[in-house]
Amino acid sequence: TIGGYLIQRLLDLGVGHVFGVPGDYVLGFYKALEDSDLAVINTSDEQGAGFAADAYARFHGLGVCCITYCVGGLKVANTTAQAYAEKSPVVVISGAPGIGERQRNPLLHHKVRDFDTQLKVFEQLTEASAVLDNPQTAAREIDQVLATAVRTKRPVYIELPRDMVAKPVIVDPAPSAPEQAGSGADEAVLQAAVAEVVERINAAERPAIIAGVEVQRFRMQRDLMQLVEGSNLPVAATILSKSVVREDHPLYLGVYEGAMGRQEVTDYIEGSDCLILLGVFLSDVNLGIFTAHLDAGRVINATSERLSVGYHTYDQITLADILPALVEAGIAPRTLDAIPHPPTPPACFPVPDKPLTIRYLFERINQFLDDSTAVIADPGDAMFAGIDMTIHCASEFTSSGLLHLTGLCRARVYRRATGPARFTAVGPRWRRRVPNDRHGTGDSRPLWLTPIVVVLNNNGYGTERQMMDGTFNDIPDWRYSELPRVIGAGRSFNVFTEDELEDALLTSRDDTGSFCLIEVHLDPTDSSEALQRLTSTLAKRVR
Amino acid sequence: TIGGYLIQRLLDLGVGHVFGVPGDYVLGFYKALEDSDLAVINTSDEQGAGFAADAYARFHGLGVCCITYCVGGLKVANTTAQAYAEKSPVVVISGAPGIGERQRNPLLHHKVRDFDTQLKVFEQLTEASAVLDNPQTAAREIDQVLATAVRTKRPVYIELPRDMVAKPVIVDPAPSAPEQAGSGADEAVLQAAVAEVVERINAAERPAIIAGVEVQRFRMQRDLMQLVEGSNLPVAATILSKSVVREDHPLYLGVYEGAMGRQEVTDYIEGSDCLILLGVFLSDVNLGIFTAHLDAGRVINATSERLSVGYHTYDQITLADILPALVEAGIAPRTLDAIPHPPTPPACFPVPDKPLTIRYLFERINQFLDDSTAVIADPGDAMFAGIDMTIHCASEFTSSGLLHLTGLCRARVYRRATGPARFTAVGPRWRRRVPNDRHGTGDSRPLWLTPIVVVLNNNGYGTERQMMDGTFNDIPDWRYSELPRVIGAGRSFNVFTEDELEDALLTSRDDTGSFCLIEVHLDPTDSSEALQRLTSTLAKRVR
Repeated sequence: TIGGYLIQRLLDLGVGHVFGVPGDYVLGFYKALEDSDLAVINTSDEQGAGFAADAYARFHGLGVCCITYCVGGLKVANTTAQAYAEKSPVVVISGAPGIGERQRNPLLHHKVRDFDTQLKVFEQLTEASAVLDNPQTAAREIDQVLATAVRTKRPVYIELPRDMVAKPVIVDPAPSAPEQAGSGADEAVLQAAVAEVVERINAAERPAIIAGVEVQRFRMQRDLMQLVEGSNLPVAATILSKSVVREDHPLYLGVYEGAMGRQEVTDYIEGSDCLILLGVFLSDVNLGIFTAHLDAGRVINATSERLSVGYHTYDQITLADILPALVEAGIAPRTLDAIPHPPTPPACFPVPDKPLTIRYLFERINQFLDDSTAVIADPGDAMFAGIDMTIHCASEFTSSGLLHLTGLCRARVYRRATGPARFTAVGPRWRRRVPNDRHGTGDSRPLWLTPIVVVLNNNGYGTERQMMDGTFNDIPDWRYSELPRVIGAGRSFNVFTEDELEDALLTSRDDTGSFCLIEVHLDPTDSSEALQRLTSTLAKRVR
Repeated sequence: TIGGYLIQRLLDLGVGHVFGVPGDYVLGFYKALEDSDLAVINTSDEQGAGFAADAYARFHGLGVCCITYCVGGLKVANTTAQAYAEKSPVVVISGAPGIGERQRNPLLHHKVRDFDTQLKVFEQLTEASAVLDNPQTAAREIDQVLATAVRTKRPVYIELPRDMVAKPVIVDPAPSAPEQAGSGADEAVLQAAVAEVVERINAAERPAIIAGVEVQRFRMQRDLMQLVEGSNLPVAATILSKSVVREDHPLYLGVYEGAMGRQEVTDYIEGSDCLILLGVFLSDVNLGIFTAHLDAGRVINATSERLSVGYHTYDQITLADILPALVEAGIAPRTLDAIPHPPTPPACFPVPDKPLTIRYLFERINQFLDDSTAVIADPGDAMFAGIDMTIHCASEFTSSGLLHLTGLCRARVYRRATGPARFTAVGPRWRRRVPNDRHGTGDSRPLWLTPIVVVLNNNGYGTERQMMDGTFNDIPDWRYSELPRVIGAGRSFNVFTEDELEDALLTSRDDTGSFCLIEVHLDPTDSSEALQRLTSTLAKRVR
């Protein structure tokens, strides 16, 4: 069947979990999902499913969210846009009215304007889309759309009318495997490009690499490290790609973010006479809101779309072509003078009753991290202050740096768990309570997740407050530490001082069986140095 | 300035409140809003702003939500779609990157694909849109777009690049007032149409009216009642337009919803030989999922778009033309035999310790309503069971019947308050707490709202459970009654039995100073008769 084929192809591509919320236009497909080897994670809201699928895609290569028509689909417009902007391969599967129901254009529930309104919206936000309204072509369309997600690392959209789920599908006996990025370059062009890049690097006095987020998306960390270690070239990361290189690696410089970053990293990168950008997003927040000073004539810029060397481009050559080719070409290792390196986190000695500051908080969290900790940072100071933390293992710091979703200022320190489900965030499924059991017995059971969530409560939109303040930057004074009572599981801490933070962190670390929420109360005027530099630049654009 | 002109035109159109969440691309306009006579209501999330603006529009004629670019705008795609589908005139105002920042197509934060990506999305979901990038034309574009919202009762989209807010605007010295619906019909056509309609009604044995939601949107309740009372014609409502007629009016039949509704209403309406539909949405949920049997040859159907009489149409004539004309024409009053009428709510006598059922719950709430109560019902059984409640005053039952937003099954009984702000729902602004005040003093103060919120907790998606059940219909077992602890204000009740409900309702009624949340625990298999009829029809389409 069409539904069964779609499920099988997702399994073939290594997907194990689907995030979503059911609705009547997608119920039949949900039943098929439940009967399959895919695990369905019900989130509390479609938006949560969209974000979970995005995180899943970043860590596992492909993510899926499955929702109903319009009332569900349009709630993931925003999360799909984030996946597009930051190159995260999310497959959005939406139910839809049956083809047989669409005769004479009736006004069905959940329909907005025309039957293709939702499709048209997602065409703006995805790299490919298909409406599976034809059993003759459905299998091929599924293959093509999924292949596009795998190849471009962008989201795609599949609409499945509900009367098509169980229709027999015409399957190509041997579907071609999704084309991997970088397999299409002309050998002569590639050789010319490699020769020029190698010559430039060898001729340079102080070459350096900036490794961007596409290295993570296209799973090329191993190639990157072979290049770095084979050539002894120092390497920096960006905000989006922080932790692409293990941050205690001796060749790691730190995060480059223009005037917003540590001065010695900025000086080293901007003083390089041959800068090799590998998969870097040239966006404003990622590169310090236009405070980056990179001389295009001295830049080699390889992305998933093309390669530029100085002022000319090789339109055919992508990051996936050039990076392995450079490893193979073998750049002669050079002897390095001393290079910048992230400072060792300062030791923290909590002072009883001393009110917490952003600076102390992040120094302490930094010290708290170990090889078993993954960090997911929300935008705001959670992300900006978080940039200076030292991540110990590869690819375990994740943030949303480009689309930069507005929310409360908060940081999340996720404990690593086995399996992918740790990224479903704070809405896991609990054991069902017996109806009309007034005592609730407290036996609800988290299935997978025991994250430590650190909420930075600074009473408002701190990033905006420093650009232009007004009552509109105040937010309701909620008690986030009470949320475990609503969820029915987990424990929480209210933290105002350094010693209270100490107690909360250590207790949370020991309590591995429980989701822990640490609400940190901060002065609304406090902020990290990175945020201050950012907002002073942004403020000029607001007025 | 362009920003000032936009604010002034909204004030001219009677808007008093703007709902939204600030962001850096819209901060300058927020400052202008704060300095104006418009009140800005900060919601916790853009989606809340979109829904609040929709509710405001339904009750006040025009609603406004104001958000930042993409990360804010795309979060109201869903709410704007609802406003479109159900004809609610919401003005979406989005900030955007400055025109001066867009040179050489940089990758700015919040940008998804192209600078016009968000515009293209909203073109699918609105009736008119404008990007205010030209001071020469901005005033005229503002006038045109706002006029379209007023005329069509559909949402519109205005994008305001941040460097345009303070630009001087070229103002037409005498902007024309927004054209009201119905002012453009040709007099000869209108006379012909009126003559035919009057003749049909007078020739009929048992004519009847179904008054739809457009009567409310276009503020024509007074015309409707003049027609009804002048002609002595009985009148029914639909799900979406419930309470368009005061429900204790002697000529009121009840809600017509095909086979889903009360049998005597269905018999009366479907037995009529001349049915006058005034502003009715012919959607599936609104008319009983295709269980309505209306013979087109005997129907006069006036909508905001055209008038149909039997099998032919008057394309020029709209509801706003024909309804006042019929009042003026004067239809001879007829003598009526007995007509159906909503039953008097049964008296409720709570039995101690008797577990609550949906049936008892809604009978009791029905009895609880008085002239000071407005009701807002969410989809699911909150809406379907709610249809049988008796609303005492005009236009005070509001639901989302067409787009039918999926959510938890819950009903809200709103206490009426003065002013429009009662519709900002559960996220009002509280007094700001002193930072680092660990005691919190509990002095937070709701500014306007003291709704009574009834949460129907049936442990899952009850509507879907009856169509096709699976673990995907189970939802996390949250303790909604704990939410006031998070919000920091309000009180709550956990209700399992009839006597507990009694206590909760009476205590809530007396405590007029506090938001009250009543969590009603229901058996997951319990549902109203209306929902059972609905789902047995829908289930056939799912499989």
